[in-house]
Amino acid sequence: MSLSVYEIEEGAKLAPRFDLHEFLPCITMDHASGEILMLGYMSPEALQMTIKTRKATYYSRSRKKIWVKGETSGLTQHVEEIMIDDDQDCILLKVKVDGGASCHVGYRSCFYRKLKPGSGDDLEFTIKEKVFDPVKVYGPGAATH
Amino acid sequence: MSLSVYEIEEGAKLAPRFDLHEFLPCITMDHASGEILMLGYMSPEALQMTIKTRKATYYSRSRKKIWVKGETSGLTQHVEEIMIDDDQDCILLKVKVDGGASCHVGYRSCFYRKLKPGSGDDLEFTIKEKVFDPVKVYGPGAATH
Repeated sequence: MSLSVYEIEEGAKLAPRFDLHEFLPCITMDHASGEILMLGYMSPEALQMTIKTRKATYYSRSRKKIWVKGETSGLTQHVEEIMIDDDQDCILLKVKVDGGASCHVGYRSCFYRKLKPGSGDDLEFTIKEKVFDPVKVYGPGAATH
Repeated sequence: MSLSVYEIEEGAKLAPRFDLHEFLPCITMDHASGEILMLGYMSPEALQMTIKTRKATYYSRSRKKIWVKGETSGLTQHVEEIMIDDDQDCILLKVKVDGGASCHVGYRSCFYRKLKPGSGDDLEFTIKEKVFDPVKVYGPGAATH
């Protein structure tokens, strides 16, 4: 299927453009708070599963397999809205998260660090407070140190 | 520089992990409204320029060059916050946009299409209203049809 730029940008048909590795980046937002929870990647199968099951399903590039978010942690993401960008190479999911947290490190969002003002070579972050203990949710394997 | 998973995830130091092509995806959000405007990509140089100039600067993968957002359209993105995700392979920018619009197709956000409910093979979108005429902002070259 070959669509024109006009059809891709102005069209009403879903025509996702996966990258060379067959991945599509997916921005996931908390539907209630508007907080960005994570950036994941979807394979064609993961996108189909997400649309059909209404549970956010990604492709884990490190584990090389389909990953239904929450299958280990219980922090399932229930899909409320699916949006796509102009050139159809990025998905935006608006979700309701079971348990209210999302990030495996123990935060509501994967974006828990904000860069402090400045532009030197040794840039530092302000870090938010954790909302859960990942070892309790994911087991001892969750410890990264 | 080789950091442990713990240092990358829990550390207070900026240590961005660019992909094999030396790109880092960047989610850009309107600081005031919380609307997601776009997903762009940054090269190491684009990230440095963004931090130093406080104007969102991307790498255009199609044009293969650094792209200071707004240099053609005037829709400059002034950076209010820079956040990074757990494994430091995605940036989140919170910006104030000159002109109030961002997408070259004529919308406030690149995410102007929402998938209608359903899971058939012929999935369709609901499309938002445009907020500006791209031909007036970008010139006749902006027309994609």
